[in-house]
Amino acid sequence: MKLHTYFRSSASYRVRIALNLKGLTPDLAFVHLRRNEQRDPGYAALNPERLVPALEVDGQVLTQSLAIVEYLDETHPAPPLLPIGPLDRARVRGLAQLVACDIHPIDNLRVLNHLKSMGHAQGEVDDWYRHWIAVGLTALEARLAGDPRTGRFCHGDRPGLADLVLVPQMYNARRFGCPLDAYPTLLRIDAACCALPAFAAAAPENQPDAES
Amino acid sequence: MKLHTYFRSSASYRVRIALNLKGLTPDLAFVHLRRNEQRDPGYAALNPERLVPALEVDGQVLTQSLAIVEYLDETHPAPPLLPIGPLDRARVRGLAQLVACDIHPIDNLRVLNHLKSMGHAQGEVDDWYRHWIAVGLTALEARLAGDPRTGRFCHGDRPGLADLVLVPQMYNARRFGCPLDAYPTLLRIDAACCALPAFAAAAPENQPDAES
Repeated sequence: MKLHTYFRSSASYRVRIALNLKGLTPDLAFVHLRRNEQRDPGYAALNPERLVPALEVDGQVLTQSLAIVEYLDETHPAPPLLPIGPLDRARVRGLAQLVACDIHPIDNLRVLNHLKSMGHAQGEVDDWYRHWIAVGLTALEARLAGDPRTGRFCHGDRPGLADLVLVPQMYNARRFGCPLDAYPTLLRIDAACCALPAFAAAAPENQPDAES
Repeated sequence: MKLHTYFRSSASYRVRIALNLKGLTPDLAFVHLRRNEQRDPGYAALNPERLVPALEVDGQVLTQSLAIVEYLDETHPAPPLLPIGPLDRARVRGLAQLVACDIHPIDNLRVLNHLKSMGHAQGEVDDWYRHWIAVGLTALEARLAGDPRTGRFCHGDRPGLADLVLVPQMYNARRFGCPLDAYPTLLRIDAACCALPAFAAAAPENQPDAES
């Protein structure tokens, strides 16, 4: 098993947390996004999406972080990353997708670079970033705070799929200086997650390819 | 079961296809996105994300189209929307997420409206739309054309999760006048899908809330 990763990629960060929770230690290959190594012909042949993460396993190349995490959960069921009941599974997947579909892609590095190429100054790009963070985290806070199934973590008292998507988004929001006081439930869950070794070891600054 | 939907919403379109494939006929509630009905207090209380679709079922409100589709697949297993093996399931989920995470959110109505609010003219907004379509569909074409598991549909000869995400994206790409000749595999699969009653009945123009 080989994980193609970049220390600062939120989507890679999700998969690193899942691997740690499962106790899996794949080989690592580093793809430097700021140096555009994802566009190298060798990597593009491996993953035509030219994004990270990608997981090589059993002769296949898996892409898309949530698909990879569900694969890891199906093939290494303990500890489970999804609850058992279909309604609860839909809740957890929905929370994860709220971040993975409706916040992260709009604030991804390639989108921010595209805005710059359209003539926007860094300040306008930062405003864009913070706007979509605020829209998305406000919705996520409302969903978590208003549901008795929220526990120490996003769903009950065990970390799972929604948590491993939340934590990288909170990390990135802090990098961009987004105010987070309006999201007490997210802050509480993020802190509970980051106290766990599986989450801490997956953080960008703790990766072999980390740069300051 | 009640589906909150808008005829032109790609994410609603996905869920409508899944419901049709499963032979399910929920009650329908229409949320007119261009009139901003998703921001009405009543709907925002139901779905703090202020997006469609949302599926009310067993006293819960499910959001995020892919989470809803997986719920439908878990609770109504026939016909299956995912293959059996974990590697194949990861492939199909990855194809679906390539569109649902890396194309659609960046080209969503609210993002296009935000670009306009930043001063961009319609032509620049259209360029934005077509840029992300081209990036995403090029990757999807490469993944599908280069894999022997691609069949009449995205995965084998039965329509599933990846197909019901592909078709609404192709529909929208046509609306925006995106050239599609470079994607022969996508065109072939899209045509095979649209020939099926479950897909045809889910098309925007065939919805009760359709407008010209």
